Amino acid sequence: MNRPVVLISMESPHSFWRLSAEHEHALSAAFPGVEFRTATEEAVSHQLAEASVYFGWRFEPSWLFGAPHLRWIASPAAGTDHLPVAEARSAGVALTRSYGFHGRPMAEHAMGMVLGFSRGLFMSQLVQRNRTWWKDDLAEEFFDLVGATMTIVGCGSIGEHLARAARSFGMHVIGVRRTPPVAAESGITWMQTSAVHQAVAVADVVVDLLPATRATDRFFDHGLFTAFKPKSVFLNLGRAATVDQSALLAALNAGHLRGAALDVSDPRPLPARHPLRLHPRVVLTPKSSTLCRTYMDEAVAFFADNLRRHLTDQPLNGLAEVLTTRSPLVEG
Amino acid sequence: MNRPVVLISMESPHSFWRLSAEHEHALSAAFPGVEFRTATEEAVSHQLAEASVYFGWRFEPSWLFGAPHLRWIASPAAGTDHLPVAEARSAGVALTRSYGFHGRPMAEHAMGMVLGFSRGLFMSQLVQRNRTWWKDDLAEEFFDLVGATMTIVGCGSIGEHLARAARSFGMHVIGVRRTPPVAAESGITWMQTSAVHQAVAVADVVVDLLPATRATDRFFDHGLFTAFKPKSVFLNLGRAATVDQSALLAALNAGHLRGAALDVSDPRPLPARHPLRLHPRVVLTPKSSTLCRTYMDEAVAFFADNLRRHLTDQPLNGLAEVLTTRSPLVEG
Repeated sequence: MNRPVVLISMESPHSFWRLSAEHEHALSAAFPGVEFRTATEEAVSHQLAEASVYFGWRFEPSWLFGAPHLRWIASPAAGTDHLPVAEARSAGVALTRSYGFHGRPMAEHAMGMVLGFSRGLFMSQLVQRNRTWWKDDLAEEFFDLVGATMTIVGCGSIGEHLARAARSFGMHVIGVRRTPPVAAESGITWMQTSAVHQAVAVADVVVDLLPATRATDRFFDHGLFTAFKPKSVFLNLGRAATVDQSALLAALNAGHLRGAALDVSDPRPLPARHPLRLHPRVVLTPKSSTLCRTYMDEAVAFFADNLRRHLTDQPLNGLAEVLTTRSPLVEG
Repeated sequence: MNRPVVLISMESPHSFWRLSAEHEHALSAAFPGVEFRTATEEAVSHQLAEASVYFGWRFEPSWLFGAPHLRWIASPAAGTDHLPVAEARSAGVALTRSYGFHGRPMAEHAMGMVLGFSRGLFMSQLVQRNRTWWKDDLAEEFFDLVGATMTIVGCGSIGEHLARAARSFGMHVIGVRRTPPVAAESGITWMQTSAVHQAVAVADVVVDLLPATRATDRFFDHGLFTAFKPKSVFLNLGRAATVDQSALLAALNAGHLRGAALDVSDPRPLPARHPLRLHPRVVLTPKSSTLCRTYMDEAVAFFADNLRRHLTDQPLNGLAEVLTTRSPLVEG
């Protein structure tokens, strides 16, 4: 009768972003003292009246008013940009994101982007309908991953996963972050954010995994792009707000950058005739770097661990930071 | 005065396919008893009169007539399709290809092709100019490499290199070859060529690395493509003659294959309006899978080892087989 109520709303057009019957059964079996209810997004505001925990993709700020018992909002997403972090904090409601399982698909995505440029695959796909033969151009363009350098800016646990993939191809990896770890056994050369200009100057590939905070707003500006090694590749799998898109476009048009692959943009999507959309050396993906068929398995496992913590009054993992304008994508 | 003469002709528009001054000095220093001469391709036929060894990209059959002392033609290429294998054999001249260093760039190339399809990068590049947002389509299309299966048909040393790269992404690898190795410690599941239909039926990615021989002519025919797992990806980095292109096109048009990436074609290049060139799910590269900036370093090292063997009457590595209509690309 007095069992805590967990309300779950996990709508998506895609099965791997929805809760399956197996997920529900597994949660009910693991937490017999908890009542799990599911609701469509439309019905959430009405169903929150008795819930102490909410687990779902979306949460509207107004929903807080009809949720007198709510203590915790759990999101299966890595970022919390789209969630009412400050409002929840004011209402005394915890808000958590999920982490630890985005690195694998993002590493695949980033390595695909790197190899698309390094092996001339993007160039080939672009010209194969219009040109007979382009081997000589490609022979000038390509580069070997063995011995090349990847600099990862905002190198947390996702970056460390990417670093392992890059190193398996023989790349050197420089990890840039505010506070480099003391014990560095990952094969990553660590540099502090203050040395980022040196870190990009030696890189064949620069990967932006920065979270969106006040400090990282337009972090990649004209000055930083100018410091890039000529003919390097820029990838953004983090947050669009960390890049001055005009400065990026200028660096591309000047031929300073070999190309850019962007999983995020501002606005999203870009206008139909936006120059980044039309640029022959830019590849856009629709915020798809975390797509993963086992996503909900991992997100439910993360939630279940946190639910155990919640029920035993231990601190939750992945608490969103309210100090930042937007919340972090990456750890560390 | 009577030093053996090695004639080198290594013309190319690209520096990494030419002999550098450093390469020449290294060879001269390593073999003080040998006289190294270089010639443009035009001058080769005249300069062969005194040479006992030739090292170069091309060799015309007619050149054999003006080369009374020639005992060995060494090619820096992996394949010998373009060389007069049978004519050299008849003239008592050895002909060698080079191997052992193509696996690394080919593994990068193949993994880039795989990730281009698995992460929807090729699809994204194709539609980014014409469509606003395609995340839902991509969410249906993509697949995770972890747990997916790659079947490599013609899995010699190049295939084993590719297998290591695929396995580093968590893929299962099936290697198909005439005679699977006895000691299998590579993590590859070996199958015999006779079981190739079973091997492709469970694969998310099928990679053709077959050499071109009588036995492999149009090996990938209608029956074999029909045995593919639905929505699988086909890569050909081997020889075009091993594929029935009409059968490949039919499998693509039927939607049975997710896509194909082809580094080789018949003819090469394909005609301007050839359906494989225009197909939205086909990516063509211009026989560029072996492009590698350190190519000549490796090829010269391979040649130097063989030259030492030649001078001490030991058997040469990489002797071309004259039994085949075309000579092998891959070992084993």
